[in-house]
Amino acid sequence: MHRVRVRVVEDALDANNTIARANRDDFDRHGVTVVNLMSAPGAGKTTLLERTLGGLSVRAGVLEGDVQGSLDADRLASLHLPVVQLNTGNGFGGECHLDANMVRSALPALPLEDIDLLIIENVGNLVCPAEFRVGEDVRIMVSSVAEGEDKPLKYPLMFRACSLVVVNKLDLLPYVDFDMERFLHHLNAVHPGVETIQCSARTGEGVEELREWLERVPARIPA
Amino acid sequence: MHRVRVRVVEDALDANNTIARANRDDFDRHGVTVVNLMSAPGAGKTTLLERTLGGLSVRAGVLEGDVQGSLDADRLASLHLPVVQLNTGNGFGGECHLDANMVRSALPALPLEDIDLLIIENVGNLVCPAEFRVGEDVRIMVSSVAEGEDKPLKYPLMFRACSLVVVNKLDLLPYVDFDMERFLHHLNAVHPGVETIQCSARTGEGVEELREWLERVPARIPA
Repeated sequence: MHRVRVRVVEDALDANNTIARANRDDFDRHGVTVVNLMSAPGAGKTTLLERTLGGLSVRAGVLEGDVQGSLDADRLASLHLPVVQLNTGNGFGGECHLDANMVRSALPALPLEDIDLLIIENVGNLVCPAEFRVGEDVRIMVSSVAEGEDKPLKYPLMFRACSLVVVNKLDLLPYVDFDMERFLHHLNAVHPGVETIQCSARTGEGVEELREWLERVPARIPA
Repeated sequence: MHRVRVRVVEDALDANNTIARANRDDFDRHGVTVVNLMSAPGAGKTTLLERTLGGLSVRAGVLEGDVQGSLDADRLASLHLPVVQLNTGNGFGGECHLDANMVRSALPALPLEDIDLLIIENVGNLVCPAEFRVGEDVRIMVSSVAEGEDKPLKYPLMFRACSLVVVNKLDLLPYVDFDMERFLHHLNAVHPGVETIQCSARTGEGVEELREWLERVPARIPA
């Protein structure tokens, strides 16, 4: 009897990864580098974008992910960059994260030919966004000092899934119980050697460093 | 031909609600009032429990929900109350919320006969916890002023699903861009008339009010 061995390639069966690769192909075809920006609610993702995107030397666009509403997209309007709002509450069941198919549904609204860098601002959540690739090149995680130094230990997958951890709201350090050394120690335990930038979107401290990091993303991606 | 009309009762087909009712029956049998405590990561749920549970006039217990680890349960150990850790990472796929079945799996570890009030501290998340009843009597939502005044508009389901909104970290008000009037205006837009308590777990402001609210929960529940 002839036996055919079927090797099940788990990754290939995952619909999300299949669609993420299709997104990736579209981004590549237009030479667009893509950042998946993740954090808990209120960590300051949008304010960081307001502060960094204006002065970028590359042409940037933003895909704003939210359960509902367009508050964040509206805030970014003054930057005069292409900004597209994607709501998981419209046809996607109010999901707590973006997935590859949602991002794909937004692609026609994005002027990929006019941008070099696309920032996808994910739904504020420290669990599920890490489980869904959307076609990004890199992931950045923003963690606010107001959230506490234990977050890497409580949500390790998020902190492991990213190439850069931005520690935001440094201006609040004198007023919260947050020991930076302990935070970095916890972070190193779950993701040894991950890059970090300490900043304050409010005072502007560290924002230039983040801007330079974003400008260097294309150079980091293997051709 | 004889036709039988089957009326599909959506709620009855929902496995989570079925199990939540079974939990509810067990809680009722032991006369235990149950609070589902929800918030974004780092809003201060555990610190609030540290500050309020010690001085309660009712016998309290805590079910600590986390993706992994027992940091929060360890912090509450000094209160000498029954504390049970429930990890969604162990056998529950690392879910971003507690559901009725997870809580049910923890019931044998809970001394229901020895407590009057059970606080279930949910996973830090502003989306999915609101969609899963676990058998609770009431839900409390904690929102920190560091998260920003726009949160009720961005995560309306969470703010609608609760009986009380605790606005925490009042001590940070001078250092963050948070207009309490606007927050309360947004909150009233998504959940008109919901009760609120403004407090600071760090300074103790408003903690007594929260303690009294928790002690009054049993009286609020219809017999």
